[in-house]
Amino acid sequence: MEGGGARNVSAAAAQTKGSADDGSCKPLPPCCVKAQAAAPESEAKCHATVVSGWFTGTRSRSGKPSKAQYFNNPMWPGEAHSLKVEKILYQGKSPYQEVLVFESSTYGNVLVLDGIVQLTDKDECAYQEMVTHLALCSIPSPKNVLVVGGGDGGVLREIAKHDSVETIDICEIDQLVIDVCKDFFPRLYVGYKDPRVRLHVGDAVEFLRNSPEGKYDAIIVDSSDPIGPAQELVEKPFFQTIARALKPGGVLSNLAESMWLHTHLIQDMLSICREVFKGGVHYAWASVPTYPRFSTSLHHLF
Amino acid sequence: MEGGGARNVSAAAAQTKGSADDGSCKPLPPCCVKAQAAAPESEAKCHATVVSGWFTGTRSRSGKPSKAQYFNNPMWPGEAHSLKVEKILYQGKSPYQEVLVFESSTYGNVLVLDGIVQLTDKDECAYQEMVTHLALCSIPSPKNVLVVGGGDGGVLREIAKHDSVETIDICEIDQLVIDVCKDFFPRLYVGYKDPRVRLHVGDAVEFLRNSPEGKYDAIIVDSSDPIGPAQELVEKPFFQTIARALKPGGVLSNLAESMWLHTHLIQDMLSICREVFKGGVHYAWASVPTYPRFSTSLHHLF
Repeated sequence: MEGGGARNVSAAAAQTKGSADDGSCKPLPPCCVKAQAAAPESEAKCHATVVSGWFTGTRSRSGKPSKAQYFNNPMWPGEAHSLKVEKILYQGKSPYQEVLVFESSTYGNVLVLDGIVQLTDKDECAYQEMVTHLALCSIPSPKNVLVVGGGDGGVLREIAKHDSVETIDICEIDQLVIDVCKDFFPRLYVGYKDPRVRLHVGDAVEFLRNSPEGKYDAIIVDSSDPIGPAQELVEKPFFQTIARALKPGGVLSNLAESMWLHTHLIQDMLSICREVFKGGVHYAWASVPTYPRFSTSLHHLF
Repeated sequence: MEGGGARNVSAAAAQTKGSADDGSCKPLPPCCVKAQAAAPESEAKCHATVVSGWFTGTRSRSGKPSKAQYFNNPMWPGEAHSLKVEKILYQGKSPYQEVLVFESSTYGNVLVLDGIVQLTDKDECAYQEMVTHLALCSIPSPKNVLVVGGGDGGVLREIAKHDSVETIDICEIDQLVIDVCKDFFPRLYVGYKDPRVRLHVGDAVEFLRNSPEGKYDAIIVDSSDPIGPAQELVEKPFFQTIARALKPGGVLSNLAESMWLHTHLIQDMLSICREVFKGGVHYAWASVPTYPRFSTSLHHLF
């Protein structure tokens, strides 16, 4: 769910647009303002940092005042999900995004990019398993698989469970995400240890364009949410680039947001995909407690 | 989800225990301290009221300081879900619980009992439909159906869609819940308008004991969460009382908490139910965004 590679798709698109519209070419990718786009400015200010929760002014057993720290994941206006913070493990900034890792009270370690929870130890399995196995089990004996984004390694770990797979390419733009997951999410990072994995750190769209046509049996886009500036991820040119890199009969598995909040987005995406992928377009969902709206969903094309 | 009838089960149990242990017999049912039991005292203080959120000190367009109000649903330690409050519509107290209704920004009207979100306009359908139709579709031509709790009317509305049903009894302990839903949740209250519905305001366990043996084809327990003081709802005597009131081949549908948080509780409940209900015990789940852990689940016995 880092979506580094996919984020770069947006970044590239935004930069192109910037150049065309006003001559400017900011290196900041649109993903970095995603949180701000999703909520009023006053609320967005709280996104990227750990904030003190409602439970202020209490006293610890020692008699000294203490504050319970909560991380707020305010992905959508009008609601928020918060996790109690035990300890900040890492804070840093890559050329692409702010990276935060904290230990939560009840969800294990938590990875946060640009203020948005990407995964937790407790519930990451539900996402990784679904986005991977639905795709790979829908076609006979997948051999060559590409992961776009997915720098944490969780999807790699799941792909590696398929014996038929011969090569697993991953294109993740953000080296910092990979390094942080190596240190703090060993159960995901283990995915890189499979000898079939080949890591490419870079722009996923460029990588896809340089790939031989029809190379992959399956492509799994483990990206950021296609809301606001990352809208390109659910538009036709992106899907056409993917389709070119797939073998006939190949499958794309892609995040498709929440059926509780984004029915129009889902409808549009399915409609576009039915034009590009003639083999069939399907929608599925799973329950992932710490994702916004707590169910994630994907469409599934082949 | 009011669980009025079911709460009374706990209340009766607690009162009995109180009398036996120390001679006291407080009228306050255990449900009123449920929130406090589920979180440390310092956090529990915030449960029953609307609290100001993290987003303080912002300025409105008029230039005057304003505070965004969020309602915190801190059902489980270590995490919380918050809804933005537009307007408080009702605040009151029955002999059984505190009742709050507010208009939210994005989930319509919200019913809160003792500080715990019970339902919202936006997502109530997912719960009501699942808890009702799984049960009623699992047996041929259900005729007599009982709802324990469910004072909002949502389960009644769903039961009424089954043409085979001849009588729909509902036993809800809290008249205030019914009255509030009449005023603020007309799309649920409409359930009472079906001529097959017979409302009984009172103690559900007493009602069940006074029912003829084998009267009901289906019983739907639309109760509070079986955590802490409401533990009795998942213990053997309660299920035996239900089983006595069911016809052979009848079905019970009952809230069974979240598969993400309560696997031990679910395991224990299924184990007990397999002793009481010989026809089969099943577990199912649905996604309900505003319920704690955002998926609700039920076991299903026949």
